[in-house]
Amino acid sequence: MEIVSSLLDLRTARLSLDGTVGLVPTMGYLHEGHLSLVERAKAENRRVLVSIFVNPSQFGPSEDLSKYPRDLERDLSLLRPLGVDLVWTPTAEIMYPPGYQTWVEVEALSKGLEGAMRPGHFRGVGTVVAKLFNATQPDKAYFGQKDAQQVAVIRRMATDLNFPLEVIVCPTHREADGLAMSSRNVYLNVDERRAAVVLFRALSAAKELHEAGERDAERLRARMKETLAGEPLAQAQYVSCADYDSLEELDTVTGKALLSLAVYFGKTRLIDNFVLG
Amino acid sequence: MEIVSSLLDLRTARLSLDGTVGLVPTMGYLHEGHLSLVERAKAENRRVLVSIFVNPSQFGPSEDLSKYPRDLERDLSLLRPLGVDLVWTPTAEIMYPPGYQTWVEVEALSKGLEGAMRPGHFRGVGTVVAKLFNATQPDKAYFGQKDAQQVAVIRRMATDLNFPLEVIVCPTHREADGLAMSSRNVYLNVDERRAAVVLFRALSAAKELHEAGERDAERLRARMKETLAGEPLAQAQYVSCADYDSLEELDTVTGKALLSLAVYFGKTRLIDNFVLG
Repeated sequence: MEIVSSLLDLRTARLSLDGTVGLVPTMGYLHEGHLSLVERAKAENRRVLVSIFVNPSQFGPSEDLSKYPRDLERDLSLLRPLGVDLVWTPTAEIMYPPGYQTWVEVEALSKGLEGAMRPGHFRGVGTVVAKLFNATQPDKAYFGQKDAQQVAVIRRMATDLNFPLEVIVCPTHREADGLAMSSRNVYLNVDERRAAVVLFRALSAAKELHEAGERDAERLRARMKETLAGEPLAQAQYVSCADYDSLEELDTVTGKALLSLAVYFGKTRLIDNFVLG
Repeated sequence: MEIVSSLLDLRTARLSLDGTVGLVPTMGYLHEGHLSLVERAKAENRRVLVSIFVNPSQFGPSEDLSKYPRDLERDLSLLRPLGVDLVWTPTAEIMYPPGYQTWVEVEALSKGLEGAMRPGHFRGVGTVVAKLFNATQPDKAYFGQKDAQQVAVIRRMATDLNFPLEVIVCPTHREADGLAMSSRNVYLNVDERRAAVVLFRALSAAKELHEAGERDAERLRARMKETLAGEPLAQAQYVSCADYDSLEELDTVTGKALLSLAVYFGKTRLIDNFVLG
């Protein structure tokens, strides 16, 4: 497993990779969700490239960039047994050198949900992923469904900008009690960790309602809110029942839809989602 | 010489091109300037790909998109003798299908000069060039110095977004009297065509002043304005003496600088530039 940082070393190492290449872009502090992406990439490509980069441009000024968890040695030790060929660990100076001024924006899909709560977030995501795609030239790139809007934005960008690659979306990995795996889960104290399962419970309750035939999106949102309200440590930021493709809020669920929510536990903000239909 | 329109046909044809590929992106209605780019691309690459696409997203609502000159048969007959391998002629529907919403913006470099006169122009340029780069995967891409700010924006974008290719800038081709070649020159009537040489004369006058030792940028701009004022058919829109890299207006010329101007003749708008130093 080769580990490179500079663009020049990356270019050289990339040129030496023969056959198809699967890219797994990460911000490090890897968990089983990331590792399942790596395993899928390994199964579908001759070579696997993992990038580890905590991208400053997708964090707002009041967000957790500086305290975002990092442990490169641990990450590398998790990747080695999986047969990863190349790990790219650029610095912020490599990705955004002085004079940097180019931004990629996916307009409509970036406006609601996470985009409404985190202005500029998806501009940072779109930009860094365009850079990762160009720098690593993968045949396929792997992302987790956990970040549903991110996945929608990246798929749209890849199509709109004619990137010659396939974006693969993999299911959300969950802890035994249903909590979606996230590097941010380490922020939770014991009580918050116990309470955090309420995201899964809220989504499950709305999904049950949908399976029982409910098509009024407001009732599905209300069911999620009620469930969240039953957990004193949870402070809901938004709950949504949106069209799966456009991410616009629905009145009535007719086709494929996305249930999603963002919830604070103290200062820790968690998101999760289910796809309906 | 293969000619394709759809993305699928382009992808297939591109995969069949062996060796290095030079891309010459054009809006068609080719003149000797374009052909010199093709010749340079042919000399430096095993294969040459020319795109012909009048990109709607770089025209403002009051600009000349609908009347921009087009003659595909003539263009193809000019390219055939030059040994071009592949011509891509996408439609607006192929490049911007329903739901299209991704834009590439190079911020600081897009603000002044042409960007100030043509809001959104360089967002359209950056976006379409990113799409052309991804769709055609060239080793080198060729642009004319005639569009100096466009070249600055594209070079910055290619570096910032880590495109794995080289942007090559070629000298401006001129008519015998000095008028820079442009597809828009066909808009000029006989009197305007005669008058249009004033752009070259204004740039030459300022360059002479610079060669004589003048370093006050305002005096260089004034010399261009005086020259333009001597031509009754010319209506100057801007004259500029800017830093070559940042494109910011200069007080004093110390290093490499860009003299540039935009001038109306009736409804026809022409631009030109000289590099100093």
